[in-house]
Amino acid sequence: MCSWKANSSRDEQFMAEAIDLAYQGRGTTAPNPCVGAVLVDGDQIVARGWHTRYGQLHAERECLAHASKKGVDPTGLTMFVTLEPCNHHGKTPPCTEAIIEAGITKVVIGTRDPNPVAAGGVEKLQSHGIEIVVGVLEQQCKDLIADFLLWQDSHSPFNIIKMAATLDGKIASSAKKPEPVSSPESFARVHDLRGMVGAVVVGGTTFYADNPSLNCRMEQLPPDFIQPFGVVVTSRLPEDPAAHTLLRKRPERTIFMTTEIAAHSEAADRLRSRGTSVWPLPGHPGGLTLSCGFERLRYEKGCHYTLCEGGGRFSMALIQQGLADEIVHFVTPRILGDNTAPAAYSGRKSISMADSVDFRIIKTKTTGSDIMLTLRTK
Amino acid sequence: MCSWKANSSRDEQFMAEAIDLAYQGRGTTAPNPCVGAVLVDGDQIVARGWHTRYGQLHAERECLAHASKKGVDPTGLTMFVTLEPCNHHGKTPPCTEAIIEAGITKVVIGTRDPNPVAAGGVEKLQSHGIEIVVGVLEQQCKDLIADFLLWQDSHSPFNIIKMAATLDGKIASSAKKPEPVSSPESFARVHDLRGMVGAVVVGGTTFYADNPSLNCRMEQLPPDFIQPFGVVVTSRLPEDPAAHTLLRKRPERTIFMTTEIAAHSEAADRLRSRGTSVWPLPGHPGGLTLSCGFERLRYEKGCHYTLCEGGGRFSMALIQQGLADEIVHFVTPRILGDNTAPAAYSGRKSISMADSVDFRIIKTKTTGSDIMLTLRTK
Repeated sequence: MCSWKANSSRDEQFMAEAIDLAYQGRGTTAPNPCVGAVLVDGDQIVARGWHTRYGQLHAERECLAHASKKGVDPTGLTMFVTLEPCNHHGKTPPCTEAIIEAGITKVVIGTRDPNPVAAGGVEKLQSHGIEIVVGVLEQQCKDLIADFLLWQDSHSPFNIIKMAATLDGKIASSAKKPEPVSSPESFARVHDLRGMVGAVVVGGTTFYADNPSLNCRMEQLPPDFIQPFGVVVTSRLPEDPAAHTLLRKRPERTIFMTTEIAAHSEAADRLRSRGTSVWPLPGHPGGLTLSCGFERLRYEKGCHYTLCEGGGRFSMALIQQGLADEIVHFVTPRILGDNTAPAAYSGRKSISMADSVDFRIIKTKTTGSDIMLTLRTK
Repeated sequence: MCSWKANSSRDEQFMAEAIDLAYQGRGTTAPNPCVGAVLVDGDQIVARGWHTRYGQLHAERECLAHASKKGVDPTGLTMFVTLEPCNHHGKTPPCTEAIIEAGITKVVIGTRDPNPVAAGGVEKLQSHGIEIVVGVLEQQCKDLIADFLLWQDSHSPFNIIKMAATLDGKIASSAKKPEPVSSPESFARVHDLRGMVGAVVVGGTTFYADNPSLNCRMEQLPPDFIQPFGVVVTSRLPEDPAAHTLLRKRPERTIFMTTEIAAHSEAADRLRSRGTSVWPLPGHPGGLTLSCGFERLRYEKGCHYTLCEGGGRFSMALIQQGLADEIVHFVTPRILGDNTAPAAYSGRKSISMADSVDFRIIKTKTTGSDIMLTLRTK
């Protein structure tokens, strides 16, 4: 349940449903945006559609196909769509044409298409006498396509930080043993995310302390599922690759991002001989220039999304370098009360509250005993 | 909006409304429980009522009075009530009689009355042919009367910890300057709570660092409003009372809970000469035996609720001594990333995750840019 559904008007409820549908395509539509649509007759939704996969039908055409399958005549009905219908011939013909042909008389649009090539849908529809409303749940519809806008404007993948912390912001005990922090339902959401992204990234501390697999362990994986890359960001490469699960199980799907010096060491050669990639990154005050490594993940490995799973110092470095596009933060209702335990975000000193990094909560969801917050930069 | 309203059946929606109404009486019904009731005709709520204040009408009678005022005939209708209707003559006659006289034919009850004196309502109603359903949103209805059960079973007030922390669990910067952490809307909820409780309690660190007023600054305070007691728990009494806002503005409404030795010091005498109370508390491993002080707040000062506003060490001590009956924890979507800043809950060392103190989230509410979590012990 999205928090902004509360007290919403009927139009907002229809748009909220379209947004929920749109998110079902997240991960597979890249580099296209996620889009959802519903067809409304009076106060009832009579058909639903969303863009399911790059190269497949757009949401509007999926929705019309659903109507047709149900024997619903769209003539005179209203369509709610999260993004302005496209007006150009790309992999599919323009959605504006499909809407006009279907006899739809009103289109409610979440947000206009910022892509100049595809835009102009509103004007085209209006020129055919179709009533247009723009801006219902606009912020949510913009949030929905933040990844798409990032891909258009930068060379970076869309990076999601995943964090699970106690009420006092701790992600492990002071002994730093790998112990579960959050509920099984929250774990399941993390595996959903791992199933969606091209790479799961951790810092060296997490890699050495937890010996993680960084794979997706969802129950029903499709037969053609390819596990995400496992990426470790560390200045210290492992001396004994065989001691690490990730390097034993899938060395060719593992990437180390490290210093120039380490990337030319014997340890790097040992890793490369197993098929593991070792990428040097330029230095950065207090660490590595992460953007170079992430851009390479996108262009060389085709990663449109990454999931960064900590620890605290690595997450804070990502945030400080402006690379945290979304944070999925699980608040688990327990208290450690131990200041020596590792914190969810760390590595800064003498920071005043005014210099904190501020986010917006765009979604709140209950996952078992926890609360899952989805956050974006302000 | 309460999180458990999502996907609820119609019965649960009616009961949820009764619960919301009940909470409106919180603070003024003590030592009676909060109770809410709605009268339902088909799928519509036609009257509402809640127990507003100790000695006033019970929720069921308030609801029937509301129906009467609206010209609604309750004959044949269904009443939803959060707590089993009382069956005894207390300050008001039994609610069972009012329900029977009104001709109501079905009563849906959240939870049975654990008080043996008032119980028996179900059997009385059934003996008059009224259909009874028990247990709709039962956990929520039990949570609603947790304060009442505590008052019956112990000598303690119902203690609420208020905390506002960043995603990394920080309540201030490392400089410990008083800077706002949460949003104005969250502050407003804190002042609602201050307006409800008999005492606002802080630890010595907060008292000396923040120089707080500990008063309720709600916009529309009733003319007869009495500010809560300001309580400071510290082993170190202030040397110069006039240096502290609380002691300048309302010394007679200030209480220090301190060690036996400090309570017999000259500093204590100086405080007492201004009308301030200084209470010695027995020692406890790592601090003071807080239960003694809190029980005295209830029996000597009439406090049924207290609001404990930190800091981290004092809150953790309350939790460890089993005195935290509720936590209102504001998650503010910002990150400090500074491990040296004070944490929301602190004072323990070498705690494994398995030894964390676990809570349940009973309510989730958006307050401005923050999320307000209401938590209870498991």
